[in-house]
Parts: sequence; C-alpha cells; structure tokens
Amino acid sequence: MTNYFSSDFKLGILGGGQLGKMMLYETRKYDICTYVLDPNPDAPCRIACDHFQQGDLMDYDTVYNFGKKVDVLTFEIETVNTKALARLEREGKKVYPDSKTLEKIQNKGKQKLFYKEQEIPTAPFVQFSNKAHLTEGITSGKVKLPFVWKSTQGGYDGKGVSIIRTGADIAKLPDTECIAEKLIDFKNELAVIVVRNPQNEIKTYPVVEMEFHPEANQVEYVICPARIDDEIADKARTIAENVSKAFTHVGLLAVEMFQTKDDEILVNEVAPRPHNSGHYSIEASYTNQFEQHIRAILDLPLGNTESKVAGIMVNLVGAEGYTGNVVYENIDTIMKMKGVTPHIYGKKQTRPFRKMGHVTIINEDISEARKIAEKVKETIKVVSK
Amino acid sequence: MTNYFSSDFKLGILGGGQLGKMMLYETRKYDICTYVLDPNPDAPCRIACDHFQQGDLMDYDTVYNFGKKVDVLTFEIETVNTKALARLEREGKKVYPDSKTLEKIQNKGKQKLFYKEQEIPTAPFVQFSNKAHLTEGITSGKVKLPFVWKSTQGGYDGKGVSIIRTGADIAKLPDTECIAEKLIDFKNELAVIVVRNPQNEIKTYPVVEMEFHPEANQVEYVICPARIDDEIADKARTIAENVSKAFTHVGLLAVEMFQTKDDEILVNEVAPRPHNSGHYSIEASYTNQFEQHIRAILDLPLGNTESKVAGIMVNLVGAEGYTGNVVYENIDTIMKMKGVTPHIYGKKQTRPFRKMGHVTIINEDISEARKIAEKVKETIKVVSK
Repeated sequence: MTNYFSSDFKLGILGGGQLGKMMLYETRKYDICTYVLDPNPDAPCRIACDHFQQGDLMDYDTVYNFGKKVDVLTFEIETVNTKALARLEREGKKVYPDSKTLEKIQNKGKQKLFYKEQEIPTAPFVQFSNKAHLTEGITSGKVKLPFVWKSTQGGYDGKGVSIIRTGADIAKLPDTECIAEKLIDFKNELAVIVVRNPQNEIKTYPVVEMEFHPEANQVEYVICPARIDDEIADKARTIAENVSKAFTHVGLLAVEMFQTKDDEILVNEVAPRPHNSGHYSIEASYTNQFEQHIRAILDLPLGNTESKVAGIMVNLVGAEGYTGNVVYENIDTIMKMKGVTPHIYGKKQTRPFRKMGHVTIINEDISEARKIAEKVKETIKVVSK
Repeated sequence: MTNYFSSDFKLGILGGGQLGKMMLYETRKYDICTYVLDPNPDAPCRIACDHFQQGDLMDYDTVYNFGKKVDVLTFEIETVNTKALARLEREGKKVYPDSKTLEKIQNKGKQKLFYKEQEIPTAPFVQFSNKAHLTEGITSGKVKLPFVWKSTQGGYDGKGVSIIRTGADIAKLPDTECIAEKLIDFKNELAVIVVRNPQNEIKTYPVVEMEFHPEANQVEYVICPARIDDEIADKARTIAENVSKAFTHVGLLAVEMFQTKDDEILVNEVAPRPHNSGHYSIEASYTNQFEQHIRAILDLPLGNTESKVAGIMVNLVGAEGYTGNVVYENIDTIMKMKGVTPHIYGKKQTRPFRKMGHVTIINEDISEARKIAEKVKETIKVVSK
C-alpha cells in the first residue's frame, strides 16, 4: 500500500467549493497532503489544504500542469477540462473518477444514451441538436407536451432544466443542443450514493428521499432513510450499484432516481462526487461520504455505509431580497434544538437562492427529526446586513 | 448575539497541536476566523487556521500581543503565560477558560488545595517546598510509603508523577516543590467532561473508563460509557459538575477521577480544555467535545452530550525502538474493521511513546466495540521507515 499518511504523497482536488472544504476535513484527519485548484482566490478550500492554486478549471494547460504536480487527482465539481484529464491518464496519472465517465456525465445526452445502452431504467427521451430541430420534433409529434427540457451541457442545480407545458415555454428556451424527456409522474425523488474502489469493492448508502424547493429547484430536505418499502429501497440500491458498475466508476457516485406511481425506479441523473444528498452522512453515518470518497480513490478499504441514527438535511440558501455580507439570523436558536448542526460554507456574500450552508438534524426517531427539521427551516434565515 | 459566522470576528487559540487541529474542524464547519500561536512552525494547526503565528506560549509579550489581535482567546495546552492572560482580561478581553482557573490548574499544589477548600473529594496529600522537606516529612512519619509524588509544576502526560515505594525511589526524585499524595487503591480510573458557558448553562458527558499503558503512563483505552453502576456514574457526573462550578469555569473541563474499592469517587486532576478522554465523542456523540468547547467559549447554546453509539478510543503512540519518518503499519487492515476511524495528528517524526494519533471504534454494542479495539491495538503499529 502507498503510504498516504503524514507522507510525501499528494492528492490533487479540482475545485475548491464547499464539497472540497468538507473533503478536506477528512484529508486533515488522515494528514494527507492536498493541492487544490479553484478560480476563486477566496474559495472555501483556500485554507485547510496544503497548497492552494488559483486557476481556471476549464483551461487545458492549467488543469494539465496542476495534475502533473500530484499523485492522484480527483474533483469536487464536474465542470473541469476533461481533455487535460485524459492526457494525464495517458501519461499514467491516476484520475478518479476518470475522464471518460466525466465526459459522459457532463453531457446529458451522452449520459441518457449510456443508460439506454446499459439497460439502466430511465425516462424515455429524444435528443435534438438545436432549437429548430426540437420545434420540428414537437410539430411532427415525435415529442409531446408536457415534457422536460434539458440542455445537454452546463446544467447544474436546476439550471438548464425546464418543464415545458406550452408554446410560450418553448419560446423562452435558448438555442442549444438538448434532450426532451418524458415528464414522469413520480411519488418520490430518491437518491442513492454508491462508492466503489479500484479493486471493485462496492457499497451503497441507504436510500434518501429528496424534496425540492418549487422555485429555485434546489433540494430543500434530504431524509435518510427514505420512508419507503424495503423492497423499493433494495431495488433502488441495486439499480444505483449497476450504474456505478456500468461506468466502472471509482469514487462516489450519487444516483438520483424517481419512484414512479407504479413503483418503477428510473434513474434521473448522476453526480460523480460527494453530493448534497449525502451531507446527512457527516453526522448520521458510520463513515461519511467525504471520507468514503477519499478511501475509494486511494484504493483503501471502504468504510461502513450504515447509519448510526436517522438524519435530515436542510439546505441554507440565501433568502430572497438579500444580497451582501451574510448574516445567519437565529442560528443560535436552532443550535438549541436537539441534534442540530449547522454547516457554514464560508461564502462571505449572500444572494437569493445561493447555497450558503446546510443544517443536519439527527435523531433516533425519524419522525422526531422531521419535526425538528421543519422548525429549523422556519427559524433560520440567511440574510445580509 | 455576536455574529461569529463568516464574519470579521476573530478567535485566538494558544497552542497548535492535535487538540487545536481537531478544534479547527469545528471552526471550519462554522466558518469562524481563527488565529493560532505555537512555537513549532510545522504545528498540526499550521494549516486550517486563518492566521498562524510562530511564537513562544510562555513569553509574556508574545502572548499579550497575540491576544490583542483577537476577540476571544482560548488555549489547547495549559503551559501558557497566565500573566499575559490576566492583563488581557483586565483590559476587557474575553479569555476562556480564565487565567485564575488556569493558574490554579497549572500548579498541582494549588489545585489540590482548591479541592480541599471547595470540599471536592480528593486523595489526602501534603505539600513540600523542596526535596529536603519531603525527606523530612517521610522521616517524621508525616508521609508514609508508598505514596504518589507529583511535581507541583510542569507535569504532563505522566511526566512529573511517580509512585514512591522505596528509599531508592526517593533518591531518584528531582529537587522541586511537590506534593505527596495517598496512593489510592482504586477499581477504576474514570473521567467526565463538563462543559459550561458564561450564562451558567452546564452539561456533562457520560462517564468514561480509562486504562493506562503501564510503562508510558499514557491512556491506552478510553471506553464510553464506563461499565459501572448508574449510581456511581451519577455520582461521578455530579462531582465533575461541582468542580466546573467551583472554578466558575467557561469551556470544557475534563475531570479525571478514581473509583475506590469502596465506591468513593475522588477527583485526581483536571484539564481545562478538550481532552484525550473525549476524543471518542467525534464519532460517538451528538455534539463532540471540540464543537462543544467552541459553543461554550462563544456563549452559544450548548449541544447534546449524549452518545449515538458506544465508543472506544485507542491512542496511537510511537512504538519503542523507532525514531524517524513515521509509517502507520497495517492502517489499511484496521480500516477494514467495522466502525473504525483512525485520526492522524500530522507529526512527521515518530519516537517511542510519542502521541501520533488515535483510533476510534464505534458500535451499538460496547462489548463488540471492545473486541474490535483489541484487534486494532494488536494490528496497527507506529513505526519509522
């Protein structure tokens, strides 16, 4: 085994946001030397890594030269230059997850096609190279209203996704390559985090239930375990595991799924990294998702994905009408509540719907946790002074 | 309430060792700006704090000037210049725990006298200003062999403490101010961590059982909860709470105690900071000791001290016969074991008995955890390459 601990081994992380910041708690715990690249000089990862470099994650030379400095390279955001990653891989560098997986995932058309080829259940879709073709597809009846429009590239946190119900909705769409996906009549939005290491050791976390904010299209509550039948949960975990195997994925893979009215499980999309739907694991799981990712990409034995207690996660997003220096109103009030832990990402400026942090609520009793989570949501407010 | 989160508030920490390092996980979680002072330029806290300053913790001017820069000052090691702290307090700076408490605790004679005055149960003792007086005390029969000799100052991790059984043992003692304490015939060594904030909100963690390495006099296992009767546990928690109240202590106070053969609880000594006996709390408790300390000194509501699961902590100390660049032999093997988390403090050089890290073992079943802890201890070895 490589000696990772208090040694001269170097782990590179592309992206220095909150996911990287939480990953660094784990590299600090293991005293693993880290290099972080991010365009923002005040990125949340700026401190706590060993070496911070400001630079463009989409720039070929920047990513390539950064990768040359480290022994293993990973990322905490998908929008990185995959061509530079591919070259690093050709030169023998370990890049986890790999560039091929990332390329497929970066493009929603390719991702969907991959599911189809691999016989992974997913909503039916048609791909269009531009808006004119999409309009043609609607006119010819190839696509029926309502449907879900997704830009094949650049979508993140609800951007690049729209539900199209009318001609007026179509008119508003940008002229880009896109897919039109069948609008699924679902009971639940679920997610399963899968972790796999290079030796093909594979584990899944329990299924979580997700609830989205209707306007911002950002996750509002993540509930673990999901309050669904064991049979459905097993099915979801198996499908998620199959997705990870299909990609021969190394590291974390968050698989978002729909549970349809008929109890079918359909894969919506995946994220090849620690994910919002796994934040509850910091407090609730034996091994949290960030430690698990580090274990996986360093080919260490995987940790225990079971929960110690039930966990619910509430996102802290900037309140509407506030832009400027952030203030977490009533944070002291929520800190009095049982099993409540706020996480502050370290962004000094708030703006409407910006992800500023999250709060985890843990309890032995999930319905108790759910009540407290609602109180948390009613109490804390991310404003500016 | 002061706005601590992503604000211009500054927390100062005297000492940059492993306790500070683990405290910084929590300041990072809350995005609280930190200043750290430590004599070692490669201290474990060097990264992950906002501002690191190299300097002597016992130097009056260094500590005073460092303290002037911050809003609240705390420490992670007792050997700091208390006169500088006292001046900062007079000038209105918040120093938690305060200089008066620290002065009492730094001197074992004063600490014991304080317990006596406050009617806190502790082993009988006699204080001597030097070795000649001690010898006189033994000759005159004021002190009887065997007894526990403790230097009043500078003792830490078993240094400055000896069990004296023979004249030869006496001969080896240094010529310093000391106390001679009755050797207690105890069943168990216990510890309780108490946390108190300036508003007099006070909470205790469950009682832990400690087992010491016979030679190095360092803790080998810390077991939470202690496998003792509820009645004894309640008594120990009440006594620990009384010690914190007697000091009007703010922050964490680790109270080490003996359970005698007659089920008396006697206070041995205290540490006014996060403590080795509370490391299990990172994985096992609702609110770990480091977060709790931060909450207390910032006058935030205290967190839940209950455990989610049973926890056992094993110290990782340098193996005998090895000095040099550290290697954690078989760390991958212990990472396969259920509920096992290694913590690596980040000291690049090992030497015999040096505290290099610790391992936490958590499990719903404490006897299962105890078995795994033994396997951990048999498997991992801190050596050099």
